[in-house]
Amino acid sequence: MIDALLEKIKNGNPRALARLISKVEDESPELPEIIARIYPHLHSTLRVGFTGPPGAGKSSLVNKLLPLFKKRGHRIGVIAVDPTSPFTGGAILGDRIRMIDHQLDNDVFIRSMGTRGSLGGLAQRSRDVAKLLDYAGYDIILFETVGSGQVGSDISKSADAVAVVMVPEGGDFVQTMKAGIMELADIYVVNKSDRDGANHMVRSIQGMVELSVFETGWRPPTVCTQANADVGMDEFMQKLDEFIAYQKENGLFEKRRREQLIMEVGDILQDLLRRQVKSAFDTGAIEDVVLEKIIKHESDPYTAAHELLEHKTSL
Amino acid sequence: MIDALLEKIKNGNPRALARLISKVEDESPELPEIIARIYPHLHSTLRVGFTGPPGAGKSSLVNKLLPLFKKRGHRIGVIAVDPTSPFTGGAILGDRIRMIDHQLDNDVFIRSMGTRGSLGGLAQRSRDVAKLLDYAGYDIILFETVGSGQVGSDISKSADAVAVVMVPEGGDFVQTMKAGIMELADIYVVNKSDRDGANHMVRSIQGMVELSVFETGWRPPTVCTQANADVGMDEFMQKLDEFIAYQKENGLFEKRRREQLIMEVGDILQDLLRRQVKSAFDTGAIEDVVLEKIIKHESDPYTAAHELLEHKTSL
Repeated sequence: MIDALLEKIKNGNPRALARLISKVEDESPELPEIIARIYPHLHSTLRVGFTGPPGAGKSSLVNKLLPLFKKRGHRIGVIAVDPTSPFTGGAILGDRIRMIDHQLDNDVFIRSMGTRGSLGGLAQRSRDVAKLLDYAGYDIILFETVGSGQVGSDISKSADAVAVVMVPEGGDFVQTMKAGIMELADIYVVNKSDRDGANHMVRSIQGMVELSVFETGWRPPTVCTQANADVGMDEFMQKLDEFIAYQKENGLFEKRRREQLIMEVGDILQDLLRRQVKSAFDTGAIEDVVLEKIIKHESDPYTAAHELLEHKTSL
Repeated sequence: MIDALLEKIKNGNPRALARLISKVEDESPELPEIIARIYPHLHSTLRVGFTGPPGAGKSSLVNKLLPLFKKRGHRIGVIAVDPTSPFTGGAILGDRIRMIDHQLDNDVFIRSMGTRGSLGGLAQRSRDVAKLLDYAGYDIILFETVGSGQVGSDISKSADAVAVVMVPEGGDFVQTMKAGIMELADIYVVNKSDRDGANHMVRSIQGMVELSVFETGWRPPTVCTQANADVGMDEFMQKLDEFIAYQKENGLFEKRRREQLIMEVGDILQDLLRRQVKSAFDTGAIEDVVLEKIIKHESDPYTAAHELLEHKTSL
């Protein structure tokens, strides 16, 4: 079954790929086996993240970059993740349009992912989808995610380069600062840069960059774009090339991947522990030990959890 | 230090309460001790949850219910949680107005909580804030939360009764279904019920209720309100009373609290395990064992995590 799917994916069957991606989204118990099977064949494709507030034009930007990547001979996988959306699987809004644009294009694969009622593991699921796309021969992965909360950050952190995209209006700057994604940027993009306030926004970003200390020595540049009018796309590609070159020359590219790998193994390990705890509770094994004491207020949830932890080998 | 704060809280000092709540939000290492200290003194106050899509008027509804609870002699604590907002601590938007309304009111305490960049533990933090409010003598706790994703659900599940609030427009019904919060309702509220489509929405809800099977035998009623015009508030209170009475008569009230307690201890236990994993990774103790193999593609993240788990006693 998995053998057949993997074979089809190698032969470029997009429907087989979609089915395997669904297994990732459904957190199929076969997932660890699937990943173990494909891992030796992965090429560690370049992954670029695009994040920012809703409405900043991330989808448009990514859409307009696709032809430029294609011209360089790449096959591109796009993973659009919205941690605030309960929609999932198929396409939503702009993605639907893009999919129609590219549905007959064998060199572009676009997939939307939402929370499906559970935030847990969304970052990990998107990393695994990237592995499947790598296995299927896509050699550039573009992550596109709403920069809100931990999950947005985690997905962005899974990329080799991160562009933070904003528009000069609606308090995007302040919102991006508060959401804690400003500091994720390797490149800033001021999209819809023909609008009022674009210059002010560029100056605000540059002022902030000037006041900051960057451990790696790379000072994030700001690119002005008008994605809908195809303006600024070449400049973005150039800055991206410069950044990747800088990372590789200074040993930072491998260092970052190493750190991401540590984060990933840690996330999976936590998830395994979470399942163990859950199954221990589901079977009621440790329930009676603690519950009565808490109900009588002779103990409390924290004390009880600490006591249980000391016996964790029995979980 | 904690002694002094707890003493002041007992004496009704709202500033001391706010300081202790900040310790919860900051996940202070003193938290387990604080909870252990206050737990014997808690009264297990009634907790009512209000959830629904953004803009459904949850805040207005809660605001208009406050005088009705006060008339019954209650002191009310309101915990407004927005898992999608990076804002936290102080007041935002509607809450700011409410706080001005009630700032000299010793019988009402309102606190907004956001993600502060991290979703992890938001449900648990709001449960702990409820304990502090209980300790401070507030004998009704109202949770108000955007019904989006796991965290919204978890907070709602911490309540003795849950109202799902919607407005007859903007696809609220479908959005609520997809977000997976529809099934959390003990009472449905159609707010802004003077608007077009209210009757249709009521019929949709009732149709769905008729087709559903309810384990406890309680069939969630639908209340029409216009919170801004004070319409339907008494009817809501009546349905709430009926539900609580039904729960208590059938042993369901205690059963639900018991299940919530199991969930809470499980959440804390998971968090403790997460910290153990994190600290093991931070110290680099298990890093070299696995990382090189994954980088060489001789192993993969899932296999590595499973191997580490088998040695978890050494973490």
